[in-house]
Amino acid sequence: MLTTASALAAVFAPRRIALVGASDRDGSAGRLFWDNLRDFPGEVVPVTPSSSTVDGVSAVASLRDVEGAVDLAVVVSPAASVPGVIADAAARGVPAAVVISGGFAEAGPEGARLQAEMMAAAWAGGVRIIGPNCFGVQNCGLPLNASLGRGLPAGGGISVVTQSGAYGMAIHTLGRDEHARFAKVCATGNKADVGDADLLRYLGDDPATTVICFLSESMPDGRAFIEAAREITPHKPVIVARLGRSAAGARAALSHTAALASQDRVARAALADAGAIVVRSGLEMLDAARALDARPHPAGARVGIVTNSGGTGVELTDLLVEHNLLVPELSPGLRAELRALLPAVGSPHNPVDMTTVWHRYTELYPALIDRIARSGEVDVVVPVLLHRSASEEVSIAVRAAVAALRADGVAVPVYACWVADRDQRAGAKLLQEAGVPCFDWPERTARAVAHAAEAARNADPLAPSQPDHPSAPGPPATAPATVAAQPIDRQLDVEQAADLLRNAGIDVLPSTVCHSERDAVRAARGLGYPVVAKVVHPNIAHKSDVGGVRTDLRNDAALRAAAREILAIAPGASVLVQPHRVGVEVIVGGIRDASFGPAVVAGLGGVFAETVDDVVFALAPCTEADAHRLLRRMRGYPLLAGARGQEPVDLAALAALVTRVSELLAATPWLSQLDLNPVLCGARHVIVSDWRLYTQNQSPRDETARRDSPGHGGEMARRSP
Amino acid sequence: MLTTASALAAVFAPRRIALVGASDRDGSAGRLFWDNLRDFPGEVVPVTPSSSTVDGVSAVASLRDVEGAVDLAVVVSPAASVPGVIADAAARGVPAAVVISGGFAEAGPEGARLQAEMMAAAWAGGVRIIGPNCFGVQNCGLPLNASLGRGLPAGGGISVVTQSGAYGMAIHTLGRDEHARFAKVCATGNKADVGDADLLRYLGDDPATTVICFLSESMPDGRAFIEAAREITPHKPVIVARLGRSAAGARAALSHTAALASQDRVARAALADAGAIVVRSGLEMLDAARALDARPHPAGARVGIVTNSGGTGVELTDLLVEHNLLVPELSPGLRAELRALLPAVGSPHNPVDMTTVWHRYTELYPALIDRIARSGEVDVVVPVLLHRSASEEVSIAVRAAVAALRADGVAVPVYACWVADRDQRAGAKLLQEAGVPCFDWPERTARAVAHAAEAARNADPLAPSQPDHPSAPGPPATAPATVAAQPIDRQLDVEQAADLLRNAGIDVLPSTVCHSERDAVRAARGLGYPVVAKVVHPNIAHKSDVGGVRTDLRNDAALRAAAREILAIAPGASVLVQPHRVGVEVIVGGIRDASFGPAVVAGLGGVFAETVDDVVFALAPCTEADAHRLLRRMRGYPLLAGARGQEPVDLAALAALVTRVSELLAATPWLSQLDLNPVLCGARHVIVSDWRLYTQNQSPRDETARRDSPGHGGEMARRSP
Repeated sequence: MLTTASALAAVFAPRRIALVGASDRDGSAGRLFWDNLRDFPGEVVPVTPSSSTVDGVSAVASLRDVEGAVDLAVVVSPAASVPGVIADAAARGVPAAVVISGGFAEAGPEGARLQAEMMAAAWAGGVRIIGPNCFGVQNCGLPLNASLGRGLPAGGGISVVTQSGAYGMAIHTLGRDEHARFAKVCATGNKADVGDADLLRYLGDDPATTVICFLSESMPDGRAFIEAAREITPHKPVIVARLGRSAAGARAALSHTAALASQDRVARAALADAGAIVVRSGLEMLDAARALDARPHPAGARVGIVTNSGGTGVELTDLLVEHNLLVPELSPGLRAELRALLPAVGSPHNPVDMTTVWHRYTELYPALIDRIARSGEVDVVVPVLLHRSASEEVSIAVRAAVAALRADGVAVPVYACWVADRDQRAGAKLLQEAGVPCFDWPERTARAVAHAAEAARNADPLAPSQPDHPSAPGPPATAPATVAAQPIDRQLDVEQAADLLRNAGIDVLPSTVCHSERDAVRAARGLGYPVVAKVVHPNIAHKSDVGGVRTDLRNDAALRAAAREILAIAPGASVLVQPHRVGVEVIVGGIRDASFGPAVVAGLGGVFAETVDDVVFALAPCTEADAHRLLRRMRGYPLLAGARGQEPVDLAALAALVTRVSELLAATPWLSQLDLNPVLCGARHVIVSDWRLYTQNQSPRDETARRDSPGHGGEMARRSP
Repeated sequence: MLTTASALAAVFAPRRIALVGASDRDGSAGRLFWDNLRDFPGEVVPVTPSSSTVDGVSAVASLRDVEGAVDLAVVVSPAASVPGVIADAAARGVPAAVVISGGFAEAGPEGARLQAEMMAAAWAGGVRIIGPNCFGVQNCGLPLNASLGRGLPAGGGISVVTQSGAYGMAIHTLGRDEHARFAKVCATGNKADVGDADLLRYLGDDPATTVICFLSESMPDGRAFIEAAREITPHKPVIVARLGRSAAGARAALSHTAALASQDRVARAALADAGAIVVRSGLEMLDAARALDARPHPAGARVGIVTNSGGTGVELTDLLVEHNLLVPELSPGLRAELRALLPAVGSPHNPVDMTTVWHRYTELYPALIDRIARSGEVDVVVPVLLHRSASEEVSIAVRAAVAALRADGVAVPVYACWVADRDQRAGAKLLQEAGVPCFDWPERTARAVAHAAEAARNADPLAPSQPDHPSAPGPPATAPATVAAQPIDRQLDVEQAADLLRNAGIDVLPSTVCHSERDAVRAARGLGYPVVAKVVHPNIAHKSDVGGVRTDLRNDAALRAAAREILAIAPGASVLVQPHRVGVEVIVGGIRDASFGPAVVAGLGGVFAETVDDVVFALAPCTEADAHRLLRRMRGYPLLAGARGQEPVDLAALAALVTRVSELLAATPWLSQLDLNPVLCGARHVIVSDWRLYTQNQSPRDETARRDSPGHGGEMARRSP
């Protein structure tokens, strides 16, 4: 028996094919396959018991009657005949069969029995099976079209393995519409024999294949697939669209039986860990494949954008950043170079905006792409080709610029974002055919570029990795020069702030600021032990970071020691003494948004405020009903409502506190920020243990920075006072 | 001075217009606007100092020379002339001007000065301004095309306010390509005067407008916008695409100055709270608008799918569920009805799959849509029209079915998912024009349907709300009948399990199972106080839920009391005594995936395991390096690494524990699940305090359930053994 690799070589690159079920009858599968195999360079032997010729070629009644060697049987005869056909193939030493016919396991118990019978014959005779119930295979390079799809797409590097026949065909058609270039296509159907892992290994070794795509509803050989993927992804991208992720989707796919949500997470984690690119749809798979079929791949995550529409540049930037890419500010030197090229109203900041100077498009697009790609400041260049720049002339100019980069060995890829009428596709085709991938609209562009960068990272494990929690709000992707001048707000004195809060009806722990050990002890005796001692210093915001919080101090000696150490933390430090209280730690805060005004924030507090990032927002002022709704939106709400048999905290008091904070913020315009963290919440108390309040202190640099920023084509917003 | 509403009525529905800067010159803006205003039913007076006629119509040199009343000045003359033009408009009592010309605040300090001068004239004379630097306004119903866009789209209910000119035009063009029907379009440009909130209020009251869309880079009047949105969204959907969300995007938008990431979150929360639909791109905005322009809107989140491709049905189901919609199983009665209609290989389960019986499409699509829509079991029906069903004949049949539903007052909307070649759009146009929104591919369909359902929820505050954390994995959307038969695994005895773990090199707390108070005290004395007492009972999984965990017991009396209560929890309960230890609580678990085999899980433990859902996965076995990488991926990793000045936990020991768990799982095939929670982690200890281990116990019902499930067209996956 042949190895799987040899059997698959017979499937994709046969010299001689037998078409079992060949026919002259219009509309029959036998006729369709006969026609589709017309361009196959080798011989196709028609096999049918019902006619002595097919299309003028003399036919044989059975595979057993074929003279000479056959590499591949393509089987379109009825399901009931297939076990016999496979037995015949075995008898003749045919190494592989593609079984198109349906009516097997997908069709009920009787079909399942037929499938088992077919497989028994296959195993007995060493015949490897693709299918059954599939749309066939294609090898665009040969050409071989042993599939239901009419016509082959242009030859290229994308290979696709699809479980779903109809959807696979639809993606295939879209690929042709969008000028994707395919190497091999294989529908696996019921996966009775050859599975995803087998095909992955074969395509991993296939020199014609540059990118491997899987569209799978089930992956019974998941473990073998992962092992193969680990070996292949460092040198060839593997893209996996897993369908049937949801419970309802899995019901449709009829393939999963156990803990479904968690199964999807295991699969995703395992595939990603093996370096595969995991996508959510066939369309996303195809876009990622088109990006990766082109070379070079991005060496990093920095994207430079060239646009004729500021708004489109902004949207593309947002989407790229949300996909964990960077759209960095360019260096002053590069900006000066670009400014010399651009019209006066253009912007040399990234996204670089030439504005709608359409008569200069054929000159500006290639020039800007060239400068930015050669600068070393970005890893990818994305030109936005919108409306009048989505033209053949501009495409030709962009294509030439990319060719010049490649000729000079500049390994920065260029991906175009195409925004135009449906009937304006000729330019996109020019680019795509020249190896410059071209994507409709910013959404698909951003996603495809992100996958291209992801594949490059997978191939080079030393490359800087993406954040592992893309959904968590990371730091801003860049520190933009034009917004560096933040207003510096002034923090209120701790006792002033406490008074302000108490006047607003907000309970804070009784607290005494002490400047000596003796004062601290006096304060503690007044409050009653146990107490907490905390550092107070104008420059110390995170007290526990400097060891400035000591809890559960039970007597004078313990407090004295703690106070001594706290006072020594920094010159000018004092020590705040409070009664020791415990509870679920919540943060309640307030901010003032430039557009939307005051807003309250609530979330898990203490160390969780920073690590878990479980915060929710509401505009201020808000009612107590609003506040209850806000609290219920917290992921950590069960901790407040009494998780695991704990008593719930006093939610009414907490909601009242949130409402009072919102009212304080709304009524006190000079209060710019407010931070109550932690608020200690127990069954019978809700009390603020630490607080920081800030007053507005607009930096004069702020307005200057704005005014000096160069505008860009038609997109800048300013409201006159 | 007129109210804003009256001024905007003059903008969108003027009786007489003055075009300032009108021209005969080819390629000039003056000529373009003159041509575009040709179909306007009222008079257009050309105003230009450089010619006595325009297009044969006698022109005046200045607005001051126009006789009779003018409702709207459309200004395309150079920026420098505009302050004077506005002063002239004020002198003639013109209530509103649309200023197309650029060269204002967007172009630098000199332009900003001109803009201020223009606004001074406008305020002095009571002229309201749209723009400057904008692409104009359109009222498709009038028709009025006072914009740079050539030709008006078909009249309908979608109104769009766009800040970006070029991108707004691109969306507009796409809308026409996809047969969206527009009411009013307005580009706001620099927003010198009229802002988003003004336009929102006007369009909210506009009877021709059914859906209001905003594409905004900045929203300086955010607070006013929110207030208007609160009033409007209960009866008319408002969709907002906010661009410039990211720091880098905001640099491009030049509009934000303070805490950027958090600003986006405030804006999103405020808009969503006001009932607006917040979207991430112009394309998403347009799709949501097309869905909502059609009536009725969905009354709930239950979607019925009718497809000719199983794979597409599965993908659409996944995407709908990921957008928080439901694809519920249909009732047995309805399934029986559908089965009678379907071919034998079809599936009456939702997504209902007719398979590729193309000769029956014109009969089956309308019949299935009709039955499902009338069943009361879904709130939306989505037919997938793919390849041969994406035809004019099928569209006509679907259109008729929808018309019959409407005629009978069935208020279940139908949205089509269109998967076809680019040149196969005629059928989609038929549907779209008949008020059946039609979306390309499952991604855009799922998103648009989700927004339609969202709008319905916003309009009806009593409707069941979506989960507030769509990213958190909720329970499966439905409890699918075919996967209800879960294998019931058997839990290992606590001491057996402890031995197994210790043999695998995993440290568990010394523990004694006691059956009486006396035994407990004896055990505690052996271990040394303080101790913990926990309930042990085969049917109690979550011990603390039943008050079965007592910590920090410091002496015999305390333990005796605790043991007495624990033993009374349930007949057969015993009490486990352990030394009292503390630390950061981590969960380490193991599962066995049907496709991917054994995998380890790590995350924040204790109550956080359920509330915060911070878990990460890796295939087992894994190395210690893998385990370190896994731990670093936890959101709560800073709690382990030493947040806020805490000492880090013994990460090496924790990684070793994860590795040992993974090895145990890989080497012990009969171990199906494993749950160490909490693992107590301190600076010098990592020890398992509670553990549950399960052995495989495949339910015989499982296989039966599978076998009885009817297959459906070509998508079912099964691997023969």
